Amino acid sequence: MPKMPDTSCQVQLRIRYGETDQMGTFANARALEWFEVGRTEYLRGIGLAYTQMEQQGVFLPVVEAHIQYLGRAKYDDLLTVTTSACMCGKARLRFDISIVKADGGASVVAGYTIHAFVDSAGRATRPAEWITQKLPAREVTK
Amino acid sequence: MPKMPDTSCQVQLRIRYGETDQMGTFANARALEWFEVGRTEYLRGIGLAYTQMEQQGVFLPVVEAHIQYLGRAKYDDLLTVTTSACMCGKARLRFDISIVKADGGASVVAGYTIHAFVDSAGRATRPAEWITQKLPAREVTK
Amino acid sequence: MPKMPDTSCQVQLRIRYGETDQMGTFANARALEWFEVGRTEYLRGIGLAYTQMEQQGVFLPVVEAHIQYLGRAKYDDLLTVTTSACMCGKARLRFDISIVKADGGASVVAGYTIHAFVDSAGRATRPAEWITQKLPAREVTK
Amino acid sequence: MPKMPDTSCQVQLRIRYGETDQMGTFANARALEWFEVGRTEYLRGIGLAYTQMEQQGVFLPVVEAHIQYLGRAKYDDLLTVTTSACMCGKARLRFDISIVKADGGASVVAGYTIHAFVDSAGRATRPAEWITQKLPAREVTK
Repeated sequence: MPKMPDTSCQVQLRIRYGETDQMGTFANARALEWFEVGRTEYLRGIGLAYTQMEQQGVFLPVVEAHIQYLGRAKYDDLLTVTTSACMCGKARLRFDISIVKADGGASVVAGYTIHAFVDSAGRATRPAEWITQKLPAREVTK
Repeated sequence: MPKMPDTSCQVQLRIRYGETDQMGTFANARALEWFEVGRTEYLRGIGLAYTQMEQQGVFLPVVEAHIQYLGRAKYDDLLTVTTSACMCGKARLRFDISIVKADGGASVVAGYTIHAFVDSAGRATRPAEWITQKLPAREVTK
Repeated sequence: MPKMPDTSCQVQLRIRYGETDQMGTFANARALEWFEVGRTEYLRGIGLAYTQMEQQGVFLPVVEAHIQYLGRAKYDDLLTVTTSACMCGKARLRFDISIVKADGGASVVAGYTIHAFVDSAGRATRPAEWITQKLPAREVTK
Repeated sequence: MPKMPDTSCQVQLRIRYGETDQMGTFANARALEWFEVGRTEYLRGIGLAYTQMEQQGVFLPVVEAHIQYLGRAKYDDLLTVTTSACMCGKARLRFDISIVKADGGASVVAGYTIHAFVDSAGRATRPAEWITQKLPAREVTK
């Protein structure tokens, strides 16, 4: 069976001065904020803007995150954030993220986050079809 | 008439590595977070814990902030945050904050924030007496 | 004498989820980070990229900041940051910043920051001519 | 052979308002900052204050992080951060961190970070004996 074409999304951001630390690279916690920028644009790109999901009572808190720091990056560096996603289990969504320097492509950060579907009261919930039909299923070979 | 005794509150915090920037001092935006730490402890100290205020439907968004950066401070420096407050106008609360190094007392940041009283819908509101009776009025001579 | 034409710079940014707080608006400290985004693009626009200034040993720490919070803004709102600058005194640079919603133009934040010129050791220094010739002088009528 | 006694370190912190997000829990990126607070106190506790390590030219950038988000926590909640560490490989240091509510002990976050030893130029380096003798080796049974 042919492999589903990759649906990935790219967005660029510049490292803010306030995101650097005294080691001269970015503060490591900011990687998780940049992952979130990637998720936001990915979801918008497939027609599931997260603001609209929350308005419909669907929330996606992070339940797990994994981050590899692959290279330094400095203030004002332009980064390219590439995000893809897949359902992993019936009520879990996984985002895979890669961040590289826009100029030259050197790797900076890679990782994933796993999210639960919950309602406004924080209870785990199965996502409705209008959501899942837009999200790639997990590939068997992965 | 004797001057009202100062009601001020002190709390200490250590500068986190993630709060530094590549200049080797703290990222300037963090001063506003430290001001907030000071406010939280001040309000708790006078019996008006902010969590309880919000539970009663009283919110205190910042409407104005002024910050003077008076000296550098490094990762792991222990800071002393001193906060006092007064009503300024009928529905405005002002916090004055001074941050110094705990060791030696060198000035780091000073400033103030002014807050509106609003309800859960964000509408300006006059604070109830159970709130104002605990807050110093503005001194005439100021 | 004719007034010097305004040299101002506009840049857009989207509010990140991690920049919101439980009041549903943005965490107030983030305004200072957005001011910094404005400064970075302003300086790049006039040919004084701040990375290059630091490489030449010229640093611009903030010595004073003033912020007015004029309206709420939510996750994913697109903001327009407009920045202008002028020398204020012989070794001080002032940035004036206004942040509005890109959609509709409602005011969100306005304020200014004042910066000292210092060398890599943190000593106050007079800026060289290659810097000051690119920066507007303070208008007399202000 | 008897198991080496656990050398772990506990430190408490309160969730700042600016650390919350519009879901009413803490912004997920802050977990990494809290991990860093744990590391700082752990290293100080074993006589290897990180400020002194950097002064000696030893830096510990994060190369990998893993975080499990186990429960919500709100503004002003007091958290207990428990940190332990071990060498993992010849030039890698691993911190294991658990964050629970101080009141009641409900789990909030757990995870680990792995750090490289590098010199001031960012080159990988083997840690000197004055460092490794204070750090537990990895337990065989792990």
